[in-house]
Amino acid sequence: MDENLANLRNGIDDCDKQLVELLAKRSALTKQVGQIKKRNGAPLYVPSREAELVAARRSQASEMNVNPDLVEDLLRRMMREAYQNQQTEIACVAPELSPVTIVGGSGAMGQLFAKQLMRSGYEVNILDKDNLDEAEQLLASSKCVIIAVPINAFSAVLNSLPNLPKNCLLLDITSIKAEPLKAMKAYHSGPVLGLHPMFGPDIPHWVKQTVVACEDELTEQARAFIKQLEVWGCRISYMAANRHDELMQIVQVMRHLTTFVYGQFLAQQSFSLAEIEACSSPIYHLELMMVGRLFAQSPELYSDIMLAQFDAVEGRLDTYKQVLEETISKLKENDKAALISAFSQSKQFFSDEAEHFLEQSKSLLSKANDARAI
Amino acid sequence: MDENLANLRNGIDDCDKQLVELLAKRSALTKQVGQIKKRNGAPLYVPSREAELVAARRSQASEMNVNPDLVEDLLRRMMREAYQNQQTEIACVAPELSPVTIVGGSGAMGQLFAKQLMRSGYEVNILDKDNLDEAEQLLASSKCVIIAVPINAFSAVLNSLPNLPKNCLLLDITSIKAEPLKAMKAYHSGPVLGLHPMFGPDIPHWVKQTVVACEDELTEQARAFIKQLEVWGCRISYMAANRHDELMQIVQVMRHLTTFVYGQFLAQQSFSLAEIEACSSPIYHLELMMVGRLFAQSPELYSDIMLAQFDAVEGRLDTYKQVLEETISKLKENDKAALISAFSQSKQFFSDEAEHFLEQSKSLLSKANDARAI
Repeated sequence: MDENLANLRNGIDDCDKQLVELLAKRSALTKQVGQIKKRNGAPLYVPSREAELVAARRSQASEMNVNPDLVEDLLRRMMREAYQNQQTEIACVAPELSPVTIVGGSGAMGQLFAKQLMRSGYEVNILDKDNLDEAEQLLASSKCVIIAVPINAFSAVLNSLPNLPKNCLLLDITSIKAEPLKAMKAYHSGPVLGLHPMFGPDIPHWVKQTVVACEDELTEQARAFIKQLEVWGCRISYMAANRHDELMQIVQVMRHLTTFVYGQFLAQQSFSLAEIEACSSPIYHLELMMVGRLFAQSPELYSDIMLAQFDAVEGRLDTYKQVLEETISKLKENDKAALISAFSQSKQFFSDEAEHFLEQSKSLLSKANDARAI
Repeated sequence: MDENLANLRNGIDDCDKQLVELLAKRSALTKQVGQIKKRNGAPLYVPSREAELVAARRSQASEMNVNPDLVEDLLRRMMREAYQNQQTEIACVAPELSPVTIVGGSGAMGQLFAKQLMRSGYEVNILDKDNLDEAEQLLASSKCVIIAVPINAFSAVLNSLPNLPKNCLLLDITSIKAEPLKAMKAYHSGPVLGLHPMFGPDIPHWVKQTVVACEDELTEQARAFIKQLEVWGCRISYMAANRHDELMQIVQVMRHLTTFVYGQFLAQQSFSLAEIEACSSPIYHLELMMVGRLFAQSPELYSDIMLAQFDAVEGRLDTYKQVLEETISKLKENDKAALISAFSQSKQFFSDEAEHFLEQSKSLLSKANDARAI
């Protein structure tokens, strides 16, 4: 190999070594920031600090002829790490809600909440199948009860519980909100709150994650719990329960069903996945990923989910089918004017977001390409 | 503000300043590597060097108690930057193909090839609507002619061209391969090559991008052009033209059509995009992005594309409709066994890739969340 090339590569390796050292140093500092924030009850995520930090380094980058987008990408990835590390120490801003009992606390979402609450200094009790006999005792001393069971089991579990203390906050984190809220109010005369975390159990940290809160009037206790979510860095989205449930039919159920249909369609064609991937542009690879990931689930579990949701979306599925038929007809009749009109109407729905989505997806596709190895 | 917090933040800012300085230094080194590679005719992308570089830093990270995944993510983003900067100087490994004439060279893809070829030292001529009178003169001296016109215009453009020199390589980069290849062979008795670049004109660099090559027997000239693509870092995927075209019906056309249908369906519901986004988990936000980005296109242009492709996929659309109907029936009849069986069959198609897709998308979703600002 060219001697000059070897020397240059050594120089690059030295830079990268220094990078790792810098990361170790930065991590020690951000951990200390976390400790101070814990003491002060300050939120993990401070949008203005994040924005200033990025702006200062972008401007330095421009002066030094370094691509500011490169610097911002690296800083954002480093901030993810800092948030993740800071999660071990978080302020408890609603100590009046401790102890918390999580019903269904052995499940993945229940565990996620249990871990985060304990990190913030709450006393957390788990109530699940194996210790139902402790229900009476655990609930009698609870200041907050979180129902974290699958939606199918919700009513049965709720109705099997003993009464809660009068001022205990009862909240649930299921993906449907109207019925659970109604059931909780019927069961408990004290403060009630319906939450739907817009994330799964595998998030690296809680910062910038959305939680939908459904309740017309927030009680003092509910406000306290929400304040804790905000200290964790969550964004709270307030919404009427019925509206939330209708939106979920679109956001979750319909997209799942059409993805399931597309996956079946692909499997019925005469191509192997390897062939399809060989012919895939980055954008199509991403689409294929979104279809394929659904089939990492258990067939039995997934069939149950689809069946449970079908009644709610049957009408919408008819609409979808109709749009499909109409589109095929327009194509068959070579009716360009009708296609343009349909396209324009939908374009209006997406308005400026379409361009924005295009930009976002480009940046994401570059990131996907970075990670590729031939 | 807490004085300790201010001090720690200054410490973090110092780290980040050093990071920018390190990036400037690294960039100067990688540019020199690019110059040496240009001299040696060496490829930009060397998978083994990339793998070794990442492995060495991951191991250092583990020793220093820094997350190796963090280090790898940062390095991969930095390598993207290096590839992008090195593109200004690339080796010319097929000088016998110069001068190159790009027919339709004013279009976005034509421009992308023109720029890359010129960076590699090729003489490049552009032939487009405004200089058709120069066709005879430009082609007479060309060693390579690239047809980069929209598929609808392909035959007309090809047949309007004067004859090419006997040993001139004629190649096209349209998204369909069988017919263009047939037309090129009928028009030119010399070497011919059908390419389909699996990327758009907005890539940051050519490294790790896929190009499909369709030709049973590669001529010496075709091999030379492919060697140049490899020096640029491209991955070549060899495939029969007919098979490629069938795959494109799935990969491009069917996915576009069903996305178009889903976008129309969304627009017909009684929700605003803002409401939908407020209720979107990161995964659904990504799916929404993939649907919405399509509507950043021109309605007229997009309708033309759909109409041009409809004949080829009419039968496949029927299959898709049938799968949709069958799925709805199974749900209506509450036939869990049939749903499980359909799910399992498709799961088999995706096999281990489903899990892999799940992992990949998780990592991508974290990256999308990093960039989010409340």
